[in-house]
Amino acid sequence: MTAAAHRSEHDLLGDRDVPADAYWGIHTLRATENFPITGTPISAYPHLIDALAAVKEAAARANEELGLLEPRKAAAMVEACREIRDGKLHDQFVVDVIQGGAGTSTNMNANEVVANRALELLGHEKGDYPHLHPNEDVNLGQSTNDVYPTAVKVATVFAVRGLLKAMAVLQDAFAAKAVEFRDVLKMGRTQLQDAVPMTLGQEFSAFAVMLDEDRSRLAEAVELIHEINLGATAIGTGLNAPAGYAESARRHLADITGLPLVTAANLVEATQDCGAFVQMSGVLKRIAVKLSKSCNDLRLLSSGPRAGLNEINLPPVQAGSSIMPGKVNPVIPEVVNQVAFEVIGNDVTITMAAEAGQLQLNAFEPIILHSLSESITHLRTACLTLAERCVAGITANTEELRAAVENSIGLVTALNPHIGYTAATDIAKEALASGRGVAELVLEKGLLPAERLAELLRPEVVAGSGSVRP
Amino acid sequence: MTAAAHRSEHDLLGDRDVPADAYWGIHTLRATENFPITGTPISAYPHLIDALAAVKEAAARANEELGLLEPRKAAAMVEACREIRDGKLHDQFVVDVIQGGAGTSTNMNANEVVANRALELLGHEKGDYPHLHPNEDVNLGQSTNDVYPTAVKVATVFAVRGLLKAMAVLQDAFAAKAVEFRDVLKMGRTQLQDAVPMTLGQEFSAFAVMLDEDRSRLAEAVELIHEINLGATAIGTGLNAPAGYAESARRHLADITGLPLVTAANLVEATQDCGAFVQMSGVLKRIAVKLSKSCNDLRLLSSGPRAGLNEINLPPVQAGSSIMPGKVNPVIPEVVNQVAFEVIGNDVTITMAAEAGQLQLNAFEPIILHSLSESITHLRTACLTLAERCVAGITANTEELRAAVENSIGLVTALNPHIGYTAATDIAKEALASGRGVAELVLEKGLLPAERLAELLRPEVVAGSGSVRP
Amino acid sequence: MTAAAHRSEHDLLGDRDVPADAYWGIHTLRATENFPITGTPISAYPHLIDALAAVKEAAARANEELGLLEPRKAAAMVEACREIRDGKLHDQFVVDVIQGGAGTSTNMNANEVVANRALELLGHEKGDYPHLHPNEDVNLGQSTNDVYPTAVKVATVFAVRGLLKAMAVLQDAFAAKAVEFRDVLKMGRTQLQDAVPMTLGQEFSAFAVMLDEDRSRLAEAVELIHEINLGATAIGTGLNAPAGYAESARRHLADITGLPLVTAANLVEATQDCGAFVQMSGVLKRIAVKLSKSCNDLRLLSSGPRAGLNEINLPPVQAGSSIMPGKVNPVIPEVVNQVAFEVIGNDVTITMAAEAGQLQLNAFEPIILHSLSESITHLRTACLTLAERCVAGITANTEELRAAVENSIGLVTALNPHIGYTAATDIAKEALASGRGVAELVLEKGLLPAERLAELLRPEVVAGSGSVRP
Amino acid sequence: MTAAAHRSEHDLLGDRDVPADAYWGIHTLRATENFPITGTPISAYPHLIDALAAVKEAAARANEELGLLEPRKAAAMVEACREIRDGKLHDQFVVDVIQGGAGTSTNMNANEVVANRALELLGHEKGDYPHLHPNEDVNLGQSTNDVYPTAVKVATVFAVRGLLKAMAVLQDAFAAKAVEFRDVLKMGRTQLQDAVPMTLGQEFSAFAVMLDEDRSRLAEAVELIHEINLGATAIGTGLNAPAGYAESARRHLADITGLPLVTAANLVEATQDCGAFVQMSGVLKRIAVKLSKSCNDLRLLSSGPRAGLNEINLPPVQAGSSIMPGKVNPVIPEVVNQVAFEVIGNDVTITMAAEAGQLQLNAFEPIILHSLSESITHLRTACLTLAERCVAGITANTEELRAAVENSIGLVTALNPHIGYTAATDIAKEALASGRGVAELVLEKGLLPAERLAELLRPEVVAGSGSVRP
Repeated sequence: MTAAAHRSEHDLLGDRDVPADAYWGIHTLRATENFPITGTPISAYPHLIDALAAVKEAAARANEELGLLEPRKAAAMVEACREIRDGKLHDQFVVDVIQGGAGTSTNMNANEVVANRALELLGHEKGDYPHLHPNEDVNLGQSTNDVYPTAVKVATVFAVRGLLKAMAVLQDAFAAKAVEFRDVLKMGRTQLQDAVPMTLGQEFSAFAVMLDEDRSRLAEAVELIHEINLGATAIGTGLNAPAGYAESARRHLADITGLPLVTAANLVEATQDCGAFVQMSGVLKRIAVKLSKSCNDLRLLSSGPRAGLNEINLPPVQAGSSIMPGKVNPVIPEVVNQVAFEVIGNDVTITMAAEAGQLQLNAFEPIILHSLSESITHLRTACLTLAERCVAGITANTEELRAAVENSIGLVTALNPHIGYTAATDIAKEALASGRGVAELVLEKGLLPAERLAELLRPEVVAGSGSVRP
Repeated sequence: MTAAAHRSEHDLLGDRDVPADAYWGIHTLRATENFPITGTPISAYPHLIDALAAVKEAAARANEELGLLEPRKAAAMVEACREIRDGKLHDQFVVDVIQGGAGTSTNMNANEVVANRALELLGHEKGDYPHLHPNEDVNLGQSTNDVYPTAVKVATVFAVRGLLKAMAVLQDAFAAKAVEFRDVLKMGRTQLQDAVPMTLGQEFSAFAVMLDEDRSRLAEAVELIHEINLGATAIGTGLNAPAGYAESARRHLADITGLPLVTAANLVEATQDCGAFVQMSGVLKRIAVKLSKSCNDLRLLSSGPRAGLNEINLPPVQAGSSIMPGKVNPVIPEVVNQVAFEVIGNDVTITMAAEAGQLQLNAFEPIILHSLSESITHLRTACLTLAERCVAGITANTEELRAAVENSIGLVTALNPHIGYTAATDIAKEALASGRGVAELVLEKGLLPAERLAELLRPEVVAGSGSVRP
Repeated sequence: MTAAAHRSEHDLLGDRDVPADAYWGIHTLRATENFPITGTPISAYPHLIDALAAVKEAAARANEELGLLEPRKAAAMVEACREIRDGKLHDQFVVDVIQGGAGTSTNMNANEVVANRALELLGHEKGDYPHLHPNEDVNLGQSTNDVYPTAVKVATVFAVRGLLKAMAVLQDAFAAKAVEFRDVLKMGRTQLQDAVPMTLGQEFSAFAVMLDEDRSRLAEAVELIHEINLGATAIGTGLNAPAGYAESARRHLADITGLPLVTAANLVEATQDCGAFVQMSGVLKRIAVKLSKSCNDLRLLSSGPRAGLNEINLPPVQAGSSIMPGKVNPVIPEVVNQVAFEVIGNDVTITMAAEAGQLQLNAFEPIILHSLSESITHLRTACLTLAERCVAGITANTEELRAAVENSIGLVTALNPHIGYTAATDIAKEALASGRGVAELVLEKGLLPAERLAELLRPEVVAGSGSVRP
Repeated sequence: MTAAAHRSEHDLLGDRDVPADAYWGIHTLRATENFPITGTPISAYPHLIDALAAVKEAAARANEELGLLEPRKAAAMVEACREIRDGKLHDQFVVDVIQGGAGTSTNMNANEVVANRALELLGHEKGDYPHLHPNEDVNLGQSTNDVYPTAVKVATVFAVRGLLKAMAVLQDAFAAKAVEFRDVLKMGRTQLQDAVPMTLGQEFSAFAVMLDEDRSRLAEAVELIHEINLGATAIGTGLNAPAGYAESARRHLADITGLPLVTAANLVEATQDCGAFVQMSGVLKRIAVKLSKSCNDLRLLSSGPRAGLNEINLPPVQAGSSIMPGKVNPVIPEVVNQVAFEVIGNDVTITMAAEAGQLQLNAFEPIILHSLSESITHLRTACLTLAERCVAGITANTEELRAAVENSIGLVTALNPHIGYTAATDIAKEALASGRGVAELVLEKGLLPAERLAELLRPEVVAGSGSVRP
């Protein structure tokens, strides 16, 4: 390798060669050697990279405003940050996502990339740090301990927005089916046993309502994420950050991101606390629980075709089996179930990482970032996939569903107020013994005229709520 | 056994003898035989028993109001319910807390106790159900599927109120110490390494703020618990509940409990959904995480007395060791840690139970009740114990703490803007090599006058936020 | 209160009055005040109390053998321990199960009860410690840090034995059904979709085999629990325990309990390590997972009666619903599911407690004891209940099951090698389009003679494994 | 795009264009569209790809042996499989790792790649399936339901072997330090409070022993993974697999992989059961728990340098802080902690996925594969990183450690048998009151001659086990 292929950089531990074309520097190099854990670089988290660039830009603007940074340098750094947010240089963010050091390596990777790109913009060579320094200029007035959590929060807000939209898409898909199936009569079940009649529209409406509630909870949780600790520096005392810096940096960051960010009232607490992440993960887990329950129901209702409930049909999206011709499996709900299990596991990971924080800092935010990001992203793709490749194409076996209601013993419960408890019980017994249907027996015995029975089984009557007067 | 010792009761499965003096009946008897799981009867959950009685009273009042129940019967049932809420008859609630059947056995236990006590009040024998029937009168217009979750919610609201109070007590204890220690200078730490100075008051203030935020989250989560599904009956269609019943029952229940209860907009969804419990448990887990982190810190800061950090002293509450004379252990924070671990485990249990709900009902609410109740109750006792037996008596080793700051290399960071980067680095190196203190060296070398150094180490300066101007 | 009602005791913190008739003393008193957490005393864990008594007896015998304890005192202490193991004095074990101090309060409760009962046996008053002292005599050569984990292990071994027996009962119940149902033909399902034929006996056989494997894993895990650290004293260096003590105490404890106990090779490691408990809990979780899966299947297979799979009937053990006459719910599998969720949550609790151990000791063993004990005990009652109140009474709907096979499209897969792929595909298509059964179509088209089809559907042929030759 | 750029393929759902140069076909294409979940293709799991190729080769050999496959075709398929195992064609494995369908898409991706490569080797075009068919030839006698779990097991065995080696490396690193530090006297701690003396060698020895025990557990757990269900086909009845196939395929797979694989005794059970994966994950969690505890200790022992325990020094591997000059953080233990939290969360994911299996199959094995693989791989890199970048370079502050012992009150416990209880207590009191050291006071008061004290503090004496005779 020729000398031109590398430049030499220096840190506390000594000198190292860095590839000449790398925008990252010696701190990044050491970090890649120290953390060969997952093989996944932070560039795989584009929201984080963009957020880091936004924070660095905000800091540069604040430092310039406070007279701590030459306008020329500040301008170059701002430009470098914008390039990053335009999607350039993402490949220079190479440190492993799971890393020790509370995110120091991620912050230093950002400092080095911004510095080296700004140096170029100023007409210098990469690595020519006396002209613009990763620590002294790019990281001026900052610490990993305020930069990293702030960037994670900004990244999370943007990721959650994507999830909220995907949930709305899925909710709409369920709601459309609720309308489509509003006249489809079926047996409701409790504890998997036949209970009382309802409409299939009500069943799908419940799926939609669950998502609606979950979206409200998620929107609440993301509010908390808007509270940042920029300006806290190392432990929240703001040491080495000048008066006015925290407020100026927050204002610029809000401006750059368009987010209504607020600075935490108690920066010491804010710097060590991971409560907002735990809350967010708890809400993601809640979403996962209910999404999984809905998918379990979809799989159950579409079981069959002959030896199952066979109430609805999921659209076939791929062949189900190589050895069983014609078999179609509920693969889309199945993949959503698995994402749900992953999110629930991630919640435990985040819980443990948050609990392990000590004294003035939580050193384990990188795994929190990773797990949170994974949960949000996978829930988003899962919701869209479920909406588009499954729910939108669901059809109902209307005739069979109605027949099941008329045949069911549970119908007796609904007829109870109209034919009397004694007659109802007799009908139930006879139906059980003979295997015949309740509707059939009621008509045969003249307990109700056919029109009255039909009236009682009208979907809008069955749907309740509040019974028909006897 | 003489005839007088028992009465015979009948159900779907046949006849059974019930102890003559039992207020519970045949359904309860079978449930105790079917669920010999934990040995813990539901009477161990007094909030639940009171809530069940409140729901039964509300239903009786609503049914009377709607003309479905004779005033005489209604009055007797209301009286029986009030006795229960006065703490009488709790010992008659004997079914195991972990039970199959979605709470049916708990509901039937309540129906039977109310019926038999009401029968007595009306001058009848226990078991004389033709005069007042557990199902037909006490459970009129109801189903386990709306009664049980409604009672669990009312019970949870009252339990959470107790927890909120206990958290306030603990927060106040921490806040009092934050004031007491506001002038105690100490080294802040990140990643367990010496970082920069702060005050011990700031450290305790962070504990207080965490609790304050957690109380806000808990108060939000308990709001959601006020939404009930009373009137939904079996699956949310309100089958067999007359028009007006849901609203009347809700109004009476709100009146009896003093809670601003609301009826869910979509009763089918509300009957199958456990989202509010998952949310609540997620917030309890968040509280546990931060409480555990605070206790970890207390144990760490009080480690020693010689070979530890020895910054603070926890009040001795019992002898620490039989073989090590004079050893005092941090037993109170330790017990709080354990409660936190329990709450975090319970969250997983609740998550799994919620996810396992199928179609129109979640049959696993009993374990949700149990786990939620345990988490809330134990967090409450843990907070009170921590406040009263530990935090209130904490003292600081003020001299040692100040000496550590003056001796620390980390002090250099704070002096950096005042003595210049080069001098600061030199001092740091010399301090590390010689083992001497930074303050001592700075004074010796005349880098700062003693008064200026003293000024920079004034607690209010150290506490920041925002640095002193050079 | 008269003087006679109390005696005064003294410890490091001062004097306190103890009820005169209490066998416990001042350390226990303080512990009950310090830990008002759960309200559940350790007496609720009888295996633990017996194990503590066994350890104390073993220590007394070892100390006597080594000449450190007068035979007269030793004899009185041994006698007191035996009374405890005979079930006497259990009510004197009053400290809360969740406690700080790594079990010190439990150990001191035991020391005080043994001392006071021994004093009585020697003709002294309770509290007359100069004659026989809780610490100096009962705890001689011991520390909480070796006594408590040793007692927890002995208690766990006995609890696990009970679970192993209960699992065998359940396994036998499933195996009996496997035999009973060996000729019942049914459709197998993958992903809830009809797959290929099998026998109901195979389905129940799988439940039995799962339990058999789980019993093997549990037996392996309990082996590890036989390794104790008695003799380690405070941190494993055996400080203040005389040479020969560890071996003598182990030998006596093995003799008393009948267990093949071994002393850990590295006592420092053994004193801080909770690996064997984590392993045990992991295996309990595995059992829970599979038990829950089996119960899910039982509930699914018995769903109906009309609008479900309706393959099997669970015996009715209680009325299912107050408002739905004749409804019978799968309450026994449901309660087992809930125990499984609890065990899985407990595993997370145990995991966190184990991870939180620091340096030479894990202070959180009390919550490990509690959670482990709960998991084992509840799994035991759940297995017995499932065996006796559910599995033993299960019946099959043989005719309907066979009809479903003949009607199923999945049958085509089985006939494929016998009628050719093209014919099979045509039959499948026609069956799907017409709603008719595959068997019926095959016979109608003369693709197979009736006897050959019957042969191919013989249960032993269907059961495989390895297909019939074409 | 020209016609030459694509080929057309057909399946149950119709025709689709596939890139002409793709070795995968229409089933893979649909799967990539159906599961856009994580963006991580299965090619990121090289052990799985190799295992799939091994299974396909074994099946081809077995089918040839049984006369079901032409030798020419079999040879081409075997060759294609070998190329895959040589690392070629891995990029053709493009389906998302989290997928519905129980692994069908992974199996079909393998079938298509093997078929198309074999076609090329036979001189045909890719897609010319009449000559060699992905289902009819490559998947002959197989089902996803036996192929996928078998491949996951083979992959897991190889991954675990890598982990076992990494754990041995870490164990050796700890053991080397145990020897190096065998004469370094230090205070042992319980509950973070000074307890009694020990050696630093003992502390590191405990870390090594924990790993040794964990390796034994892992080796046991991986044994269970050697039991496969190849030959089970769809549900374990072996339908459509000829007699002798299961045994032949197993024999060839054992031969190809060099693993002592066995066929499960009950294939119906084996096909639906995930017990071995749950067990494996439980053991990985155990490893994580103890690794995390060890890292917590390392971070604690190296806390400081001035305001911490400062017992050991971790080698600096990167600069710790941009604003705090000279700060070195324990970044390597911190990253290992995070991997541990991830593994513990993955265990919950795997638990939920295993519990969710229904009837004859668990459809959620893809997330089990993903989580298990992640846990094993990250634990491996974590162990190696910890060994090489941290443990190997740890040094001890021997003088300070010894001084702490001589200064500690806990020393009294050790001297108790030698100077008597009364003198010991007096010394302890005086030391506490005066702040002076115990050793100093003992010598000053002439309670022990200096040589005797030195003897009692000799490392081999302190290390125990079993005390020195008085």
